[in-house]
Amino acid sequence: MEIIKEIELMQGLSEKWRRDGDIICLVATMGFLHQGHIELLRVGRENGDRLIMSIFVNPIQFGPQEDYKRYPRDAEGDLDKARSCGVDAVFMPTVEEMYPDGFQSTVRVEEITEYLCGRSRPGHFAGVTTVVAKLFNITRPHLAIFGEKDYQQLIVIKRMVRDLSMDIEIIEVPTVREKDGLAISSRNSYLTPEERSSALSLKKGLDLAKAMVAEGEKDPAEIKDAVRELILSHPSTEIDYIAICDPEELTDIGIIDRPSLFALAVRVGKARLIDNVIVREN
Amino acid sequence: MEIIKEIELMQGLSEKWRRDGDIICLVATMGFLHQGHIELLRVGRENGDRLIMSIFVNPIQFGPQEDYKRYPRDAEGDLDKARSCGVDAVFMPTVEEMYPDGFQSTVRVEEITEYLCGRSRPGHFAGVTTVVAKLFNITRPHLAIFGEKDYQQLIVIKRMVRDLSMDIEIIEVPTVREKDGLAISSRNSYLTPEERSSALSLKKGLDLAKAMVAEGEKDPAEIKDAVRELILSHPSTEIDYIAICDPEELTDIGIIDRPSLFALAVRVGKARLIDNVIVREN
Repeated sequence: MEIIKEIELMQGLSEKWRRDGDIICLVATMGFLHQGHIELLRVGRENGDRLIMSIFVNPIQFGPQEDYKRYPRDAEGDLDKARSCGVDAVFMPTVEEMYPDGFQSTVRVEEITEYLCGRSRPGHFAGVTTVVAKLFNITRPHLAIFGEKDYQQLIVIKRMVRDLSMDIEIIEVPTVREKDGLAISSRNSYLTPEERSSALSLKKGLDLAKAMVAEGEKDPAEIKDAVRELILSHPSTEIDYIAICDPEELTDIGIIDRPSLFALAVRVGKARLIDNVIVREN
Repeated sequence: MEIIKEIELMQGLSEKWRRDGDIICLVATMGFLHQGHIELLRVGRENGDRLIMSIFVNPIQFGPQEDYKRYPRDAEGDLDKARSCGVDAVFMPTVEEMYPDGFQSTVRVEEITEYLCGRSRPGHFAGVTTVVAKLFNITRPHLAIFGEKDYQQLIVIKRMVRDLSMDIEIIEVPTVREKDGLAISSRNSYLTPEERSSALSLKKGLDLAKAMVAEGEKDPAEIKDAVRELILSHPSTEIDYIAICDPEELTDIGIIDRPSLFALAVRVGKARLIDNVIVREN
């Protein structure tokens, strides 16, 4: 497994693989790999001849009050896991390599980044699309794998790829969950045992919403009220948003008469957790 | 010569050329080719195995009060010229092909687009970088040729390429001028014979500035005053800006003690004309 820190070296290797006719697959991560990443790598390994994983905790996608500094890191553990997953190259640049002095360019998706997490994390998605565009230019993948857990990120990246005619296929991988349903996330490591059990309220809220729709409820306001009540009945929870919206445009839905995205962001202790599900009407 | 209107077909052809090991060179144009473009094509032909020329009058780089609708067009003439210049493929998409419904992504260079033309044409450079990034993704060039006439555009594109790690070499081509010194531009076609002679004041202004520096003048304010007076002594001229600034950062220079960019934008009748020169201190 190659471990590469310089942009030029990574580009050179990808270019060589492309000339050899290899299909290149990218899994972009911020490291601290968990079962969700492992699943992305598994899908990547299955679909590409060459599997590249990037590890980069991207400062420009964190707000000034957010957890950039304390974001969990474990380079050695990550490299071991990458080896076990059959990764061909790990690209792990420094911040200075990615954003040298004078850096001043941004890739932005405008409308669908204004909703959901975009509302409470201004600038976050511009940070994501900028770094992903740059990682695409560096690793030159044919395929890139993203998880449905970060649903808005997934569709923002798909929109960027389509709008800017990047010749890359985005493969979506379903959310990986703990046995009890908690969506796996690096930020779960911030949870105390008590908070860990409150964190389950996200999945329970989504299940409740799904059940209500299955029973014929079509009014988003009714469902949001019930989900809010359920979540707030758990200690240390603070709701950022509960959204029921169009799965592509992320605009609110007035009545649930078509497949809808149910998405949540909830603060549990120090962790801001998200989860989502697409619900088909009854 | 191939004439291609669909993004996917162009990507397929470029990908094939790349696999064949060909060096691909792009000359991006808005059509209505003149001697300046011909020079870009000549340099492109010299440097690449495959020469692609794009023709696309890009609506998003024009302001609402600007000349998008009346921008001169001559597709047949352009194709003839492209053939004579040895172009391998002309990419000429429709606006709908480039910006389908729901398009909402932007590539932006932030700081150096705030000065000079960026000040009087808000949004212009975001339109330029967005379309150029997209054209790069579509034509996948190793090299792209841009003229020094649009100096700010040139360095904005170079900054975008560097910041976003686009693996593309930008080649700069000196401004092509008429015999009397007027920088060749499609917008010269807007000029009446009287305005044509006033348009010469741009080059005369730059020559005057250069002469003043050669004689030891180091104060930008003195030089700007003299250039302003010279230009305004010509009928139908209205100055948009006279700038003396750092050639990379485009920030104003307090004293001319290093190579400086002298740049002008002047309205002459219906045409907004620009010209520039890099002046080395005496």
